[in-house]
Amino acid sequence: MTGPDLVWQVRDGVPQRRPDELAVEEPLEIRASVALPGSAGTHLETLSVTMRTPGNDFELVAGWLNAEGVLASPSELRGIRYCTDAELDDEQRFNVVTADLAASVLDRLRPRRTTSTSSCGVCGSASIDALCGAGHPPLQDGPTVAWHHVAELPDQLRAAQRQFSSTGGIHGAALVSADGEVLVVREDIGRHNAVDKVIGWALLAGRLPLSTALLVVSGRSSFEIVQKALRAGIPIVAGVSAASSLAVRLAEQAGLTLVGWVRDGRGTIYTRPDRVELSPPD
Amino acid sequence: MTGPDLVWQVRDGVPQRRPDELAVEEPLEIRASVALPGSAGTHLETLSVTMRTPGNDFELVAGWLNAEGVLASPSELRGIRYCTDAELDDEQRFNVVTADLAASVLDRLRPRRTTSTSSCGVCGSASIDALCGAGHPPLQDGPTVAWHHVAELPDQLRAAQRQFSSTGGIHGAALVSADGEVLVVREDIGRHNAVDKVIGWALLAGRLPLSTALLVVSGRSSFEIVQKALRAGIPIVAGVSAASSLAVRLAEQAGLTLVGWVRDGRGTIYTRPDRVELSPPD
Repeated sequence: MTGPDLVWQVRDGVPQRRPDELAVEEPLEIRASVALPGSAGTHLETLSVTMRTPGNDFELVAGWLNAEGVLASPSELRGIRYCTDAELDDEQRFNVVTADLAASVLDRLRPRRTTSTSSCGVCGSASIDALCGAGHPPLQDGPTVAWHHVAELPDQLRAAQRQFSSTGGIHGAALVSADGEVLVVREDIGRHNAVDKVIGWALLAGRLPLSTALLVVSGRSSFEIVQKALRAGIPIVAGVSAASSLAVRLAEQAGLTLVGWVRDGRGTIYTRPDRVELSPPD
Repeated sequence: MTGPDLVWQVRDGVPQRRPDELAVEEPLEIRASVALPGSAGTHLETLSVTMRTPGNDFELVAGWLNAEGVLASPSELRGIRYCTDAELDDEQRFNVVTADLAASVLDRLRPRRTTSTSSCGVCGSASIDALCGAGHPPLQDGPTVAWHHVAELPDQLRAAQRQFSSTGGIHGAALVSADGEVLVVREDIGRHNAVDKVIGWALLAGRLPLSTALLVVSGRSSFEIVQKALRAGIPIVAGVSAASSLAVRLAEQAGLTLVGWVRDGRGTIYTRPDRVELSPPD
């Protein structure tokens, strides 16, 4: 939006005034607009304000709605639009996205946002079972994938990111087919946003569930990344860094193949290695 | 909690079964318990479920309450405790923390969680002004700090982390005095949690506002990190990687000194260089 910022680059205590390209972070407000049955009007609600790198915002919103369990089916998402309030300046207008949703999502809006508040029995809601929710469909066995395709994933992701990133250090996510074809790559200052964007791309293209695709992420695989993959039906997740303990537990429970530390021809398979074609063990 | 997981380490397509130490991620449910005036009972509310690395949970909750603007003063936090429901197993019990809060926070609980939902005029709420909120006190001019202290911060953080981390790759945050003394270091799988923990440590020790301290973070400085620093009165934030565009804008607006890319004796000062003692420019 603006040119590079002027900063002070310091070396051995000596400052030099230089331009610097910053990774862009802006707030995005995600709103739901639900046409009520009959002519009962419209339910409007702000669902979330999230920090993201602008670009592919409609994909981000579609993927986020899917990951949060708001959508039981992609058809419940009727449309997505930027705010049309003429009083707003451009920057604000493009930081507010409204999703037009079917009335069938209403039951899923409330319980998602507030947990029970009446007694200490709520404690269980912080357990992994409640966090997984009844949300995701069971995974299909999915494809098997050759190890060399898995080993190449980080290079493919980085090569694709180089094409549209000038600041560096920004997170990337990609969907890749079982035979190594890159379907889509997206970037964001937040890794979870990059994942929402690629899954939202698939949702808007009518490609959910992604039962034959791999999800590749830069950096760490957390619980949240595995959960997003499950809600999209993705059977294999590969990350450049470690997976967390809870990501491994969720992958194990759901039967998802989780791979970490993919670099230099190596990697660590945490769960369900049967989807990866390996040589016999030494 | 458990021993190392068994994983398959793959090299050139050949798997080997090996134990692996995972970075621990567990959900933490943060609850508010507010004694209502008179004998009107108690207001109970789940404020958030966040993923974190267990340990220093009370600090995390104290710091989070401060960062979210729930607390106008540390004295509104009357106590912090784990859940005492006997039916829960240990794992669940230590994943639920209740903060006992003064009735004066009630007004701040609601607006924090929902933005206005009545008209498109809400769009402005996604703007930086609304996100900053009326929350943080104005920064004091604070200390000046010698450049060599700033340059040493990442090494100090890493050295302290090595003492209690076995998994590696986990985020760290530290508070450091203006003459380079490390006050506290905390780790977490989430960088924002590590920051909440060090600030929560200070809050519980009666050290807020931290008007003469530096906050050091591993990795990137985002809007959220700068916001947390401001709410704690911290005048200088230094990160090992880049700062985001919005972090720089917020730091500029609030008069906070923001430094990034601190490594190998170099660094980038984004805002307010007057708090850093530098040599004359070349």
